[in-house]
Amino acid sequence: MLENQMREIGESAKKASYVLAGISTEVKNQALQAMARALEERVEMIIDANRQDMDDGRAKGLSDALLDRLLLTPERVKGMAEGLRELIGLPDPVGEVSNMRTRPNGLRVGKMRVPLGVIGIIYEARPNVTVDAAGLCLKAGNAVVMRGGSEALNSNMALANVISAAATSAGIPEGAIQLVPTTDREAANMMMTMNEYIDVLIPRGGTGLIKVVTAHATVPVLQTGVGNCHTYVEEDADLDAALKIVVNAKTQRPGVCNALETLLVHDKVAQEFLPMAADALQEKGVELRGCPRTQEIIRDCTPAAEDDWGTEYLDTVMAVKVVKDIEEAISHIQSYGTKHSEAIITNSYKKASLFVQRVDAAAVFVNASTRFTDGNQFGLGAEIGISTQKLHARGPMGLEELTSSKFIVLGDGHVRS
Amino acid sequence: MLENQMREIGESAKKASYVLAGISTEVKNQALQAMARALEERVEMIIDANRQDMDDGRAKGLSDALLDRLLLTPERVKGMAEGLRELIGLPDPVGEVSNMRTRPNGLRVGKMRVPLGVIGIIYEARPNVTVDAAGLCLKAGNAVVMRGGSEALNSNMALANVISAAATSAGIPEGAIQLVPTTDREAANMMMTMNEYIDVLIPRGGTGLIKVVTAHATVPVLQTGVGNCHTYVEEDADLDAALKIVVNAKTQRPGVCNALETLLVHDKVAQEFLPMAADALQEKGVELRGCPRTQEIIRDCTPAAEDDWGTEYLDTVMAVKVVKDIEEAISHIQSYGTKHSEAIITNSYKKASLFVQRVDAAAVFVNASTRFTDGNQFGLGAEIGISTQKLHARGPMGLEELTSSKFIVLGDGHVRS
Repeated sequence: MLENQMREIGESAKKASYVLAGISTEVKNQALQAMARALEERVEMIIDANRQDMDDGRAKGLSDALLDRLLLTPERVKGMAEGLRELIGLPDPVGEVSNMRTRPNGLRVGKMRVPLGVIGIIYEARPNVTVDAAGLCLKAGNAVVMRGGSEALNSNMALANVISAAATSAGIPEGAIQLVPTTDREAANMMMTMNEYIDVLIPRGGTGLIKVVTAHATVPVLQTGVGNCHTYVEEDADLDAALKIVVNAKTQRPGVCNALETLLVHDKVAQEFLPMAADALQEKGVELRGCPRTQEIIRDCTPAAEDDWGTEYLDTVMAVKVVKDIEEAISHIQSYGTKHSEAIITNSYKKASLFVQRVDAAAVFVNASTRFTDGNQFGLGAEIGISTQKLHARGPMGLEELTSSKFIVLGDGHVRS
Repeated sequence: MLENQMREIGESAKKASYVLAGISTEVKNQALQAMARALEERVEMIIDANRQDMDDGRAKGLSDALLDRLLLTPERVKGMAEGLRELIGLPDPVGEVSNMRTRPNGLRVGKMRVPLGVIGIIYEARPNVTVDAAGLCLKAGNAVVMRGGSEALNSNMALANVISAAATSAGIPEGAIQLVPTTDREAANMMMTMNEYIDVLIPRGGTGLIKVVTAHATVPVLQTGVGNCHTYVEEDADLDAALKIVVNAKTQRPGVCNALETLLVHDKVAQEFLPMAADALQEKGVELRGCPRTQEIIRDCTPAAEDDWGTEYLDTVMAVKVVKDIEEAISHIQSYGTKHSEAIITNSYKKASLFVQRVDAAAVFVNASTRFTDGNQFGLGAEIGISTQKLHARGPMGLEELTSSKFIVLGDGHVRS
């Protein structure tokens, strides 16, 4: 029965995607506007549905942090509506033709940007993903099939019903925005192998979710990212700037994937820099876990275990290691990093170039905080996540990353000899 | 034991990939030259090894077609060497920085093209893939781990040994070009899940191989393509041009993925066009399998069964269907096509635009033969295959498609507020 239900969802999404691919920017923008308005008009109904999830969550003993993620308020719903309106202003990536060139035989060959088709999103707690993802997928001309966390089912259903009805009323085909209306785990498993209907799968959530999806999906996956991010302070760094950057990267918002997790410091400046850094960070409540050399220099520093180097704390904890040179820093990052965001603080042109060339990550920074890894900060507009894989998209994924291309070949009776 | 061997291969490839990412174009080109020269110098040894595969193949009763694919001659080895030399002239994609823009806060954000890392290739009969794939991967700065067909093991080993020794002598790190030296099927299975060591997997071969890899791989896959290609002749087509294009697409080389498999003809010109087409094609030995309407119009036409619409014949057989309009043609292509190469023959601007917009395929043609879907023909230089998936690369994949990118972010003490 679930199988039939999922097949129907897949079929109608696929069907909708064919129509969506040809729908004008104007209609898509009108739909985004209608969706935003509908969210505002139906805010009470949405919050009622959310209340049920919150009650269930409390009864199940969800943590306060999780309950806060789940909670919808009039302001949060308003925020989702505004997110949709922001998409209206972004350029439509679909239909752009690039690299159109005439071959020696007169054949004209170029690339046209097209939607991916049907995008599957498997996500956890936050109900705002329902609206954000639907909006981004729609603007890029894709149909979307979403499967949210079971704790948020009522909220997600309410949101999805409101926006999908609004989109349809504005001329978007039915089936373009769908939420899988069940908490059955099997539904997510089915999505992972619905190659016939789903073109790309984007898991959004913790490491566990991403691992399961990567391991089981036969549908191509866009992995979004775990970030064990490093900042390396070179011997010639401006230490005041380094201090500001390190404190910002670690404490401005510790619970996100682009926050700093391990500080690497050149041995020659460790004696001067580490006490400054420790004071500033400990004042902000950051617990430091250091290598033996770090422990010699700063007090109140827990010894770092091997595990610390590989941990994404997502919390006010930071590992600290003194390294003898940039080579050791790069090799540490290669061994323990997750290829998300890595930074060097240096005034040396040569060291900056070396770091940028050699460090293999979605975003490599010179003299800036890793916290900037973000679609808006990078100028892409809204993002659907930060890819840490190398295929298709790397780093923040905006509207362009939700598209593919096709070659268009214009001839005049051309045959191959 | 095999597991240890595969881990060693993976580890040394990964290690080599880190060095390769920073190697200059000059060194890579010198290595390609050395590899080409070594192939020419060691041609006898290579052909001796191939003789063993040919003897084994005959003993096993391989078909003549398969034996011909397996066969190496001095000319074929020379051809491989020339293929390597052609890569020298192509621009090195690695290191290109694009879209470098200054954000309102002064942060400079751009994208740098970087190698993918380690590419795994799983392929069937043709030993030339060993050389072609190694050359392309090397020029794009990637290490490669290759697993060829068991029938070609001796030939592949000889080729891989020659080119990898030549590459190393020219300054390429050991481990950059490796062939899995066993016919154990388990080795291919292991490659599919070596996520730690292999960044991307490219299966090259028939539908069976591609299906197995797509279903079992946890490593991201670049699918190369099955092509059930169509050509649709509109009512306003120039029928002489249409005839030339159809004959070329079907007969110029029937055994390849961009050859025409199903001809669609508008009802209004079927009576005039089909007899012309049948004469020309049957003269070239093509067997026609037609819909009922086609059978009324042309003689010597086998009835097409439902299966014929979905078959990639790769042979001198063609299915023929009369459709009532462009909508029926597009919907037939949507139902039965494999999203490879699709063509329309028309003089109508409107119909051409509609077809280009609506048909979802790696390459969409107007008034030209589908046989042009090819890296060289499209101006990309050599290709590693034709992708029929939508993620990362679609259509012929050249050097650029063997790379990824990273964001580079240049600041001046920037912190996020």
